[in-house]
Formats: sequence, structure tokens, C-alpha cells
Amino acid sequence: MALIVQKYGGSSVANKELIESVARRAVAAKREGHQVVVVLSAMKGETDRLLSMAKGISESPEPREVDALLATGEQVTIALFAMVCQTMGEKVKSFLGFQAGIKTDDAHCRARIADIDPSRIKTELAKNRIAVVAGFQGVNRHGDITTLGRGGSDTTAVALAIALKANMCEIYTDVDGIYTTDPHVCDTARRIDRICYEEMLELSSLGAKVMEIRSIELAMNYRIKIHVRHSQSQSPGTIICEEDADMERTPVRGVTSSVQEGRITLLRVPDKPGVAARILDLISKAGIVIDMIIQNQSVSANGQDEENWTDFSFTVPAADYKATLDLVTSAGVEIGAYKVVGDNNIAKVSLVGVGMRNHAGVATLMFKTLASEGINISMISTSEIKISCVIEKKYAELAVRALHNAFNLGAPV
Amino acid sequence: MALIVQKYGGSSVANKELIESVARRAVAAKREGHQVVVVLSAMKGETDRLLSMAKGISESPEPREVDALLATGEQVTIALFAMVCQTMGEKVKSFLGFQAGIKTDDAHCRARIADIDPSRIKTELAKNRIAVVAGFQGVNRHGDITTLGRGGSDTTAVALAIALKANMCEIYTDVDGIYTTDPHVCDTARRIDRICYEEMLELSSLGAKVMEIRSIELAMNYRIKIHVRHSQSQSPGTIICEEDADMERTPVRGVTSSVQEGRITLLRVPDKPGVAARILDLISKAGIVIDMIIQNQSVSANGQDEENWTDFSFTVPAADYKATLDLVTSAGVEIGAYKVVGDNNIAKVSLVGVGMRNHAGVATLMFKTLASEGINISMISTSEIKISCVIEKKYAELAVRALHNAFNLGAPV
Repeated sequence: MALIVQKYGGSSVANKELIESVARRAVAAKREGHQVVVVLSAMKGETDRLLSMAKGISESPEPREVDALLATGEQVTIALFAMVCQTMGEKVKSFLGFQAGIKTDDAHCRARIADIDPSRIKTELAKNRIAVVAGFQGVNRHGDITTLGRGGSDTTAVALAIALKANMCEIYTDVDGIYTTDPHVCDTARRIDRICYEEMLELSSLGAKVMEIRSIELAMNYRIKIHVRHSQSQSPGTIICEEDADMERTPVRGVTSSVQEGRITLLRVPDKPGVAARILDLISKAGIVIDMIIQNQSVSANGQDEENWTDFSFTVPAADYKATLDLVTSAGVEIGAYKVVGDNNIAKVSLVGVGMRNHAGVATLMFKTLASEGINISMISTSEIKISCVIEKKYAELAVRALHNAFNLGAPV
Repeated sequence: MALIVQKYGGSSVANKELIESVARRAVAAKREGHQVVVVLSAMKGETDRLLSMAKGISESPEPREVDALLATGEQVTIALFAMVCQTMGEKVKSFLGFQAGIKTDDAHCRARIADIDPSRIKTELAKNRIAVVAGFQGVNRHGDITTLGRGGSDTTAVALAIALKANMCEIYTDVDGIYTTDPHVCDTARRIDRICYEEMLELSSLGAKVMEIRSIELAMNYRIKIHVRHSQSQSPGTIICEEDADMERTPVRGVTSSVQEGRITLLRVPDKPGVAARILDLISKAGIVIDMIIQNQSVSANGQDEENWTDFSFTVPAADYKATLDLVTSAGVEIGAYKVVGDNNIAKVSLVGVGMRNHAGVATLMFKTLASEGINISMISTSEIKISCVIEKKYAELAVRALHNAFNLGAPV
């Protein structure tokens, strides 16, 4: 007998028929002898509907009230889901965030779970009941309802799995697992059976949308196994788990691309200590998060390195591109930059894989492949298990297909 | 400076515009220097929408889950209302039942308030904030959400007013007060300025729908003044308060009628102790509430009283009429009744007024008036401040108009 946490996303509980379908899955697990905790999102579209009501009243509604409003979405699904289980003859109880003992900090609309007291859920599980928990919500020390931000139900599920020492956390969604790349872009994309936390984290950070990043970090920190599966199929899905020796045999686990960034470059900045810090400080004070940063010696008009000058480039989220460009353009003059230029017509293509640590030549093959397609690389950034290249936006999908093919990711492993 | 509890019903918060309109009223009271607590219902139609979702899943959904589901209705309105107040520049906080300290018993879907701990609301009022409280809901000793049954928001408002020692409880609704009779039936119906708790209780029990009976009882027990007003007009409304000497000058405060009952009669029952008890016991065990009861010596075919036999009649809610008739028909035979007959083609017309205690002749004028319209009376029941007559259903509206006119209720007092 195992203790299993199952999380069903909004598209899996979007109407009565879907709720019945996923409830059958939860009930089946229960009848196989497992203890089952179900975490639910709001019905698909419901959170947006509620949010638009709030936005209809105020452009910046009080976050505490937004949380009280949004939390109703999950409250509705857990009650309906519990009713469905009851019609199937199962004993079941629903739990709101505060009833499930999910305590958060005070940051309304983006709260972090501070602690979970799972005693009430444990009591109900011991009474042979299915526990149905509202995802996305908790309660702060004042007894106010908080929400965890978009995708927060994944975090609820993983955090509960940790608090309950669950054997497995199953994330049911509308895709049947993690793929080597986006199947909409590349028709040889292949479902990955097993992927390690670090790889999943990089893939998510780089644009794969299956799971919320915070929940993967949490699972990684506590070594909770996650099983990503399609809620309406029996596909085996993908297991996210600790790295094992097998995984390193494959240098590259997946390819991803993102067009959600803009690049800003300061040309010919005086190469003095503290210049980069000044720029970055300015941007972070504006609440903007920088992704890639590259600094390079400037090259003069006649092609010579200029020792006392440097070029400085970085990327920011597309939504912050314009504001950042304005900010840096005025600051750049003070700093003594020759010119500030921006480009939001870019894409970032990345390879991810823990195996790349032991395989020389991944970068070489990547650059070669892009070159052979006539794609110019304007920025490169690497980590132990990732290589990202910034290229022209129009080549994003071509690059993904070419790299997927070059690294033979479509072949069964 | 007074402490005022304002309750707005579902039709007063049915959309954004209405919420804005009633929020202006709450904010105005605050700016006049009062401490303001607002109690809200769900938007009109929302509770029914949620209930129909539940009924779509199960004919008898678990009451605990129904409560979790229904409680979202009020949660949405308090959040939106608070946001609206914020756009008006007011400091405000919303409170769910459990946050407002509203503790109930365990009877899901029809819980009774056991206790209120208003400390958090008091704290926020002291900080110059408007407190916006979800009506209709509370929390039981397990931390589960309960609801108070239909119209429960009135009870929330009155109970909060008591707990907070409020100076006034204002009930805003879609009529502009209590009327001498239903204005749809009688065009000379007149708004009543002041009515005492006992009269209001009788009128509500007899069919006037403005306020929930439980909330009036509660207000009466704690002598909290209630002000019933229209949420979209400046009409002075009706004050429900303690009886004063003035009130007794008017023998009849109002006329009401109800067609929501059926009458059952056992003819020629042996006149022995315990017979009535046996019948009533049977019915109350079936969960049916009896309204009027009348026992009379039987009259033989030749018009003589029959000393050892009695006729026994009572009325039950129309919805229970058929079940009661079946129940009593089979039991009547055992008891030795000659015959059991039923009639659900009846109406009950009632006069209510504390003044009738001191005015002889109210009953006389009532019977005369009905007789002069050719209306036969089949049952009569009286209390200190009420006279009810059961008549044929088709005469209900005629009787109301005739009585309203005979007692001159349309004239200003």
C-alpha cells in the first residue's frame, strides 16, 4: 500500500464529465489499496473569469481580496469532485487550504508555503477516506486566504506529498508526459520515460510549460518522485526523479526554444570595475529579471581589440524589453557607453541534459548544426547541463528541428 | 458615532453596477462617522447555479460538500465589494464566516450560529476600516464550513449586530419596507413606519417574505433594532423594534394570506385521551410541521352534538399535503375515525397587530367582512396578536382587499 498524491489540472476538471473521469482514476487507485490524496485546480477558465471580474472593478485590486476571490475556483472543484466520489460509493472529504493545514507567508497572490500541518488529512486517510484538497491556496498567520500564483496547484501537490511522506506525486495534465521537444514544432518529438530534476528544471525554465518551476525545485530538494501523466489516457507518462547512471548515457535530453526575450547591448563601455554592477543594479531595482549576460572586449572599427573598452549584452523577458531599453539608454550615456542598441527579434534555443557533463562535443555539434542551416548565433550561455544560443527569431523552429535531428533525440533509447 | 451593520441581499449585489451602488451607501455611512459592518449575500441566482451543479452530480449530495460549494457565492461578493470600496478610497477588509468568528453547530446546510467571536472585526473597525462579512456561512468545531439555510444572511447580520452591540442593523433589499399587505394584491397597501418584533414575526410566519423568521426571533430576543430599506432608493423604510404605547392604538398592523397549505380532517374520531397526540406524533415523526389544529365535537346527521365523538382538523405545508393525507388515511382507520378527508384548495388569511389585545371587535369585524363578501370560513385560529381564517383558495385576494379596506389600513397613521 502506497500513499499517492494525485494532482489534476484545470483542463482535467473543466466540466462534470471530466471530473467524473478523473474521479474514477482516483477511486481506482484507492481500490487498489492505496491511500489517495487528490489536489485540484479550478475548472479551466474559471480563474481567468474571476480575475476579469476583479479587473473590471479596479486595475490594481487589493491582493488580499483577489486571493479571497480566486480561491473560490478550487473550492468549487473540490466540492464537486467529492460529490462525484460519493456517488461512486467512496468515503471522501474535501479540504480548503486552511483545512489542509497549508500555511503560507503573507505575500498575497504569490505566497510561498511556509509549513504544512497534514494531521487532519492523515486522520481522514486513516479512516479510509480520499482526501480532496484545494490546490493553489493556503492561509497566512492572520488567517487570511493566500494564493500561490499561477500553476500553484503543482506546488500544493508536491508540498503535500513531502509533508505526508508520499510514495509518489502524480501530476495529471493534458499532455501525456515530457517530450524531447515541442511536438507541435517537431514531429519526431519523443516522450521521455525518465528525466532527472535538474534537467526538468532547466527545460521548464527554458520554456517547457508542463510543470511549474517552483514545484520541481521543491520536489528536487526533498527527492519526491513525480509522475507526469495525461488525465484522459493510459500512456505511461514521464517520471521525474533523481539522476541515475543510465541517464548520463544520453548527452542531450531535450531541445527547447523561447521567443519571450529581448536583448539589449551597450557598445563600447569603459572597461572599469563596477560598470556592469551599475547597470544590473538599475535593472533589478526596477523589478526586472535578467536572464543571459555576456561581456566581451570591444572591437574597433578596424577590427582590433580595444583593451580599455568592452561590449556588454544581456537579455530580459519580452514584456520588460521596452522599459529596460529606455532605462538603459539614459543610464548608458552617463556610464560612457558609445551606444545602446536593442533587439527583440530574437529566440533562445537550448539543449539540456545531465549527460552533457561527460560528453565533449555537444557544443561543437550544436554550433555546427546551426551553422549548416545558415543560422547565426548572437549570444551563447552555458551551464553544466545546458547550452543556450540566441538566434534570429524567425529561425527558432528550424533550429529546434535541426538540433533534435542532429542529436538523434527522436530515436528510442 | 454609531456602529451599524448593513446587510445587502442577492438582488442588491447582482452585478458590478449594483455592487458599486450599495458600496457608495456603505462608504457614505462610514464618512458620516459611523463604524460600518457590511454583510453580503451571494449575487442573485448564484446559489441556485451552484446548487444545480451539485444536483447534476447527485440527487442527495453530501451536505458538508454542498456547504463548501455554496459558501463560494458569498466569498465572491465580499471580495468584489471590498475591491469597489478600495476604488472609492476606503480602507476595507473582507471576512469569510470563519474569519469573522461565526461558529455554528454541525448541522450542514441548516446550521445554527452557536457563538460569535467578533474580535477580529472589532480590531479592523478600530483601524478605521469597513468590515465586509460573508453572510449565510460559518464554521463548525471541526473547522468545516457550514451554511445557515436559505435567507441565512439576515441571521448573520442580526447575530453580528448582537455580538458587536451594534446600534442598528440595516437590512437592504428590493422592497422599500414592510407593507400593510402585499402591494401586488391590494393597491392601497401602505408602507409601515414602525412595527414591533412580535408583529413582524407573525407576518413573516404568515407569508410576508421580506426577512427570514429566524433573524427576527434573534433580533427580538436581543432587542436589536432592524431597519428594512430598499437598496436603490432613499425611502425611509420600516423600523422593526420593541413595542411602544403608540403601536397599540392601531388594532391591526397588517393583512396577509398564504395558499401554501392543505387541510386534513378526521371525521368522527372517538373522543378519548391520546387520540390527537397519536395523530400528531405520527406526522411529526415524518418530519412534517403542523400549523393550525382544531378539534370540535362531532355533529350527527340529524344535527345533534355527539358527545363521545370529535372532529379533528389540521393544516400542513402544501408540499407535505399528499404525504400527510396518505399517512393519516391509514392511521385514521386504526384510530377509529369515520372518515379522513383532505382539502388543498384552501387559503389562510390573517390579521396581525399587537393592538388587537386591547381592542374588542377585531374578530367580529373580520368575520363580518368575510361574510359580506360571501366567503365561508372553514377554520379559525387565534393568538394574542393574530387571527387567521382558512377560506377557499379562490377568495384569497378578495379577502385580503376586503379586510385591508374594512380595517382602513391604507390610511396614514
